[in-house]
Amino acid sequence: MTKNKRVAFFISDGTGITAGSLGGLLAHFPETEFEQIRIPYTNNSAKVEDAQKRIANAKLLSGVRPVVIMTIGDSELRNELKQVDAYYVDLFESFLSPLGKEISEMPLTRPGVSHSITGSNYGNRMEAINFALGHDDGMTHSGLNQAQVILVGVSRSGKTPTSIYLAMQFGIKAANYPLIPEDFERGTLPPILDGYLDKIFGLTIKPERLHSLRSERRPESHYASLANCREEIGLAEALMNTMGIPSADSTSRSVEELSAIIIQNMKN
Amino acid sequence: MTKNKRVAFFISDGTGITAGSLGGLLAHFPETEFEQIRIPYTNNSAKVEDAQKRIANAKLLSGVRPVVIMTIGDSELRNELKQVDAYYVDLFESFLSPLGKEISEMPLTRPGVSHSITGSNYGNRMEAINFALGHDDGMTHSGLNQAQVILVGVSRSGKTPTSIYLAMQFGIKAANYPLIPEDFERGTLPPILDGYLDKIFGLTIKPERLHSLRSERRPESHYASLANCREEIGLAEALMNTMGIPSADSTSRSVEELSAIIIQNMKN
Repeated sequence: MTKNKRVAFFISDGTGITAGSLGGLLAHFPETEFEQIRIPYTNNSAKVEDAQKRIANAKLLSGVRPVVIMTIGDSELRNELKQVDAYYVDLFESFLSPLGKEISEMPLTRPGVSHSITGSNYGNRMEAINFALGHDDGMTHSGLNQAQVILVGVSRSGKTPTSIYLAMQFGIKAANYPLIPEDFERGTLPPILDGYLDKIFGLTIKPERLHSLRSERRPESHYASLANCREEIGLAEALMNTMGIPSADSTSRSVEELSAIIIQNMKN
Repeated sequence: MTKNKRVAFFISDGTGITAGSLGGLLAHFPETEFEQIRIPYTNNSAKVEDAQKRIANAKLLSGVRPVVIMTIGDSELRNELKQVDAYYVDLFESFLSPLGKEISEMPLTRPGVSHSITGSNYGNRMEAINFALGHDDGMTHSGLNQAQVILVGVSRSGKTPTSIYLAMQFGIKAANYPLIPEDFERGTLPPILDGYLDKIFGLTIKPERLHSLRSERRPESHYASLANCREEIGLAEALMNTMGIPSADSTSRSVEELSAIIIQNMKN
């Protein structure tokens, strides 16, 4: 099937991250292939003109009018931009202005408000990233009592990117520990984790997928062999079951999905 | 000044990440303190009822109706949720349905479409994270030719979190190298970076801020002293200027803002 093509611009007077995040919703249109173009820091007339040229050009080249998702606080710049033909989703007009009426407060219109360093959670997020990097793969036990989540699972089950995502996106301090043959022989978690059971979350994965991931790293090794992957995963899952550790399968889940599940679990 | 308080729910049949990302825009209302609550995986009637109870309860406790930002594909569940009094921002109704008319395609309504592992960029993002972690702080030179960006700057100028953000959010492979006294004595970048000048981006920082960051790690050290921070930064900036390396100051910029600047620079 040939897909329809459409250019989608995300134009902002700041980083363009909020506008761009709506780009995820475009996945709801599988028959259309969106070429996504971000134009951040569109905060004066000259830059608006540049953006207009790119929109007009995209329309000329594609034959259909582009989609423009925009967060520009200055209403003059906003209206100036919209002079060129496109399908506009104006988040200030459609989201912030009506919300401002609801809560009886006029929204700030200066650029760069949303993703600045002064956001209340920014310091926490940076601290959590340092924590996740410092506590990756059982690297150090020091400060483990500060962890809000401790991920466990066999090597290459997705612990590292999930820990980093939890930190980067939510400021959650996540440590992670690999489950290794010694743990299976002993039949318990690494002893250092004693007393932290309520913070522990397990990641598991299908043997075929683990085999493929490990083969990228160490092809033809015992470590990567399907038989060994199957055995390690079986032992890890048995350990999690015995100890009542909640877990999720990373085989077909993104770090976003895993993180949402982990956070839900933290709340219960 | 006492802030107005308001509860903002982000309710989704998937991870809630898209809805939650609009939470960034709430920073445009500095006089209102939003308590942000995410309710992901609201994908059946029982979960909708749970969400309704939480909304109703928040209204009772706060005395004002909560703001509910929602991405739920199933229109029956959607309408069921909206039976309880709140200010609703329904992204399916206000964004996806009209956009679907514009592009002549009905949006998929099943949950979990936006942040699934099947998204075209997911594999790239995970690969880029591994790359960033493996090429942090000049850890290895192997595979450096695959880097799309190479960040340089003195220790603690923000290279690591920025590299990881570029990878996690955009799938950009970013390596980073510290600038150290040996580089300043020689007056050039680390020799291994020869030939990569067009990929190099510098991070700089104000001496006072660097002093404070380094003091957290090694208090009372020469490394952290204000005099040494001032000297290193001066030498690093001189080196960047001499070599024509574009740079940005991380003192008052978030990783989101730095990344947006770096990406803009890559395109030019």
